[in-house]
Amino acid sequence: MITNHGVVTTPAFFPVGTQGTVKSITPEELMEVGVEGILGNTYHLYLKPGHETIGRLGGLHRFIHWERPILTDSGGYQIFSLAKLRKITEEGVTFQSHIDGSEHFLTPEKVMEIQRTLGSDIAMVLDECVPYPSSHEYAQASSRLTTRWAERCLHAKKDGDPALFGIVQGGMYRDLREESARDLTRLDFQGYAIGGLSVGEPKPMMQDVLEWTAPILPDSKPRYLMGVGTPEDILHAVMHGVDLFDCVLPTRNARNGMLFTSKGKISIKQAQYAEDPRPVDENCLCYACRYYSRAYLRHLYLANEILSSRLNTIHNIYYYIDWMKRIRAAIQEGKLIQFYQAQQAKFNQSEDEGFALSEPTPA
Amino acid sequence: MITNHGVVTTPAFFPVGTQGTVKSITPEELMEVGVEGILGNTYHLYLKPGHETIGRLGGLHRFIHWERPILTDSGGYQIFSLAKLRKITEEGVTFQSHIDGSEHFLTPEKVMEIQRTLGSDIAMVLDECVPYPSSHEYAQASSRLTTRWAERCLHAKKDGDPALFGIVQGGMYRDLREESARDLTRLDFQGYAIGGLSVGEPKPMMQDVLEWTAPILPDSKPRYLMGVGTPEDILHAVMHGVDLFDCVLPTRNARNGMLFTSKGKISIKQAQYAEDPRPVDENCLCYACRYYSRAYLRHLYLANEILSSRLNTIHNIYYYIDWMKRIRAAIQEGKLIQFYQAQQAKFNQSEDEGFALSEPTPA
Repeated sequence: MITNHGVVTTPAFFPVGTQGTVKSITPEELMEVGVEGILGNTYHLYLKPGHETIGRLGGLHRFIHWERPILTDSGGYQIFSLAKLRKITEEGVTFQSHIDGSEHFLTPEKVMEIQRTLGSDIAMVLDECVPYPSSHEYAQASSRLTTRWAERCLHAKKDGDPALFGIVQGGMYRDLREESARDLTRLDFQGYAIGGLSVGEPKPMMQDVLEWTAPILPDSKPRYLMGVGTPEDILHAVMHGVDLFDCVLPTRNARNGMLFTSKGKISIKQAQYAEDPRPVDENCLCYACRYYSRAYLRHLYLANEILSSRLNTIHNIYYYIDWMKRIRAAIQEGKLIQFYQAQQAKFNQSEDEGFALSEPTPA
Repeated sequence: MITNHGVVTTPAFFPVGTQGTVKSITPEELMEVGVEGILGNTYHLYLKPGHETIGRLGGLHRFIHWERPILTDSGGYQIFSLAKLRKITEEGVTFQSHIDGSEHFLTPEKVMEIQRTLGSDIAMVLDECVPYPSSHEYAQASSRLTTRWAERCLHAKKDGDPALFGIVQGGMYRDLREESARDLTRLDFQGYAIGGLSVGEPKPMMQDVLEWTAPILPDSKPRYLMGVGTPEDILHAVMHGVDLFDCVLPTRNARNGMLFTSKGKISIKQAQYAEDPRPVDENCLCYACRYYSRAYLRHLYLANEILSSRLNTIHNIYYYIDWMKRIRAAIQEGKLIQFYQAQQAKFNQSEDEGFALSEPTPA
């Protein structure tokens, strides 16, 4: 995937940099673990410090010292999950800031302007992320509005603007997903996202929606599964043709002391690690695993030290990036199905037992 | 100053790594800014994760991945500032942990054992840090007890133990400081610390005590001013012969958004920096100043981002280390007094006005 700030090897995973930083780590550390792009949240940056401030300071890349691709969401997801007193009309959406209660009005044209001003490489259309559960009637009206907004975004696109991706919505209904995908693919977006998943629905339902939707999106354009997910979710989606992912899971879990390892997931605060001299994962080459013991990471976590978040975040992002590399290698060798089967057993085990990773909650 | 983990160029400043980490930054980052040694707090490490745990994991250097010198305090300062229900006897001090209220009994011999187990390079004797203000009677009894405890520490010293420094106490009384220094220098410590300063006394009083005490300590051994202070405090003390410093000021102020610059101190949260594209200090070569604007640092601070603490900490430690380099250069050129006079004007100015650095509070 070629962008204004370089090439991304797909399938790819972009860590989330909500407020102009992937929480706790630097761009150099992201590059060291092999991150090829990050996601910025338009909603957050629009409210603080403001897209115009970032624009006057030379754009988001310069502001945050990141030279590689940035994908920005449209703010839709946060408007519908974080903001207060939302009111949706054909024209756009009015909401109150979750920070200070100030009132804002965003339209498809406005989110294009914001993402242009930020200097994003990949912009997303304004969409409504339909909550789960929603009635067929609501999901249909909403996904049709999202499609009309998508068309307005496309019309608002100017020369030199970021690449623009449409977003398939439609709740958990197959007919609506198909309608949304059909209507959007008639428009000339540079990529297509699958939105509205990982919003609380059962995992088999998420897999069904993905399996209905991904295959009917154009082969020739990137497919992006928004806000998903666990390593196994990602592998499943890649098998159905998804090219791009973002998720807060590795970074948020890191700050909560939950670490991914080649032998399952561990919660570093557990007493069993109090004097464990081993690295988190003996098969891992990340900075945290090269130099620090589980005992030290447990101590930092219990002592509420900032370095805990840093080391855990580096480790978890490294794990995700390495996971994507392994998936790409399996694809190149034509052995993706065998890789998937070999991993199945591991997905259900947790090295320290009795510990389940929580699902991502709204950012 | 030659230690078991390398040479320290004096006068030197050691950042404080309270709980086995200089808050928010890595050993590599400390080395990059030129830090030659750090301080670890025996009180904190004894309580969490416990010195025996650290000992079983190969000692503090290995535990925290730091190959250079570590100085450990004796815990005295924290027992008298943080812990609850202290009871002092000739034998030692009983206190309750500030974390869980558990009761502990520390003696001079015990703090030697703890610092030995941690694998410290420079250990401190158990002392009572006399509060300000204290009566002459109390300060005298206390400093004599500190001296008796110091002698017991020396007797408890074994082959292969850390270097051991005595601590001059005596409150703000000249006769007691002189008595303490005289009695301690009759014993064969490898260095001498001046304790009990920067505990709330007026600055001229601190300077008086320092000027009485430092010159009567042996020329041939390192003099260490504990827990002090601002750049100007350090320069003043160096002029009176002090070789070693530690203080939480650069790191704690960093986390509070207070930054040292060559033109005065600034509070990064101020509105005037909202769109300021300049680095914190245009004369600074630290990582934060090389790549980030004041506007970005202000945004990170206001957004409560972890990266704010990191970048600010790197900057402030860099400032302190650079300050020590400039002092050493002035000494080598035989121009320390001229350097001191040239700096006087700058000490009283603050680039953003109306902002005064707070004094360090107990760690």
